[in-house]
Amino acid sequence: MGNYIITIAREYGSGGRVIGQQVAEELGIAFYDKKLITLAAKESGFAEDIIERVEQKKELSFFYNLYLTGQEMSLSEQVFLAECNVIRKIAEEHSCVILGRCADYVLQEQKNCLRVFIHAPLALRAKWVREQYKVNRPDLEDYIRKQDKNRAAYYNYFTHNKWGESRNYHLCLDSSIGIAACVRILKDLVEEFIGGVASGNGERD
Amino acid sequence: MGNYIITIAREYGSGGRVIGQQVAEELGIAFYDKKLITLAAKESGFAEDIIERVEQKKELSFFYNLYLTGQEMSLSEQVFLAECNVIRKIAEEHSCVILGRCADYVLQEQKNCLRVFIHAPLALRAKWVREQYKVNRPDLEDYIRKQDKNRAAYYNYFTHNKWGESRNYHLCLDSSIGIAACVRILKDLVEEFIGGVASGNGERD
Repeated sequence: MGNYIITIAREYGSGGRVIGQQVAEELGIAFYDKKLITLAAKESGFAEDIIERVEQKKELSFFYNLYLTGQEMSLSEQVFLAECNVIRKIAEEHSCVILGRCADYVLQEQKNCLRVFIHAPLALRAKWVREQYKVNRPDLEDYIRKQDKNRAAYYNYFTHNKWGESRNYHLCLDSSIGIAACVRILKDLVEEFIGGVASGNGERD
Repeated sequence: MGNYIITIAREYGSGGRVIGQQVAEELGIAFYDKKLITLAAKESGFAEDIIERVEQKKELSFFYNLYLTGQEMSLSEQVFLAECNVIRKIAEEHSCVILGRCADYVLQEQKNCLRVFIHAPLALRAKWVREQYKVNRPDLEDYIRKQDKNRAAYYNYFTHNKWGESRNYHLCLDSSIGIAACVRILKDLVEEFIGGVASGNGERD
């Protein structure tokens, strides 16, 4: 059995990061999040702060822009492509959990990639953000919705898929069942999935 | 620990029915699908064939129509409400798996209800429909898409939710990992979920 990759996309405040970290730790595999930006920066020569800044930019569609402008790419698009290369390189090198960064889309053709989306009811996320991230503001729910909107806009711009659309993921899980429960379910799935990949993925029994 | 209910919505040909049947069998709980129609018919006095016929009917929105027409309800809407009553009655009486029938929406306020959506890539579903349902036609993939469209239209008409939208379900699962694997994951989730309900559902640990 070779490498396997678990990509985790998640709503803001759903605990997806903690779930990913715990799964990686318990499986003894690497965990990547913003580290990717650093790696991408080194790889491509872009300064890290520029990469972070251009990520906030939202446009109609990466592919539509490519179509319009031919081969000419904006800085943000070049950064995205540099990140794609980093993700593919990491995935070749070793098993890991990758948080965000459109990794599910980048690796969608790879049979050893398990795609996961974590979400939770808004009220529960507000409680989590208040208690864990120490964010306390009167418009907290709106703030959370805005974070999700930004994540969706970034993902929808750079991929042909829709962020959080159930069909794009092997598993979508509501973390209101508890963080520890999610970790266990995810580990179970990895076990099933690795077995499936080893014996011919996609086959029914 | 009291009753618990697992609702399963599923794409056509995803194997969601078989998964539901096996989970129910292995957990030793009841399984409901079209039986509901019979029960609803008996409960409400509607003839079964009328119920089946009106289910095909697609309109803008149940709630919009209620708003427009006041208290006046069409036959299909009366049938839907009769089915809702049956679902609620069953859920009160004993633990069970309920396939389709907007049961996730009907029972959405109940903490002992686990909502599941099963999907799979189109090519795999076409293989399944050909082999298991013995449906073989040149336009098979279009036929499958149409079945999904009908299910979505029925669900979207009678509920405020969107069929297959990840946030409406505790678990969305891609059955390309294998039917047996899905059954095991679902049973694991039930175990976690029942533990969660018993110790205060929605709490994080």
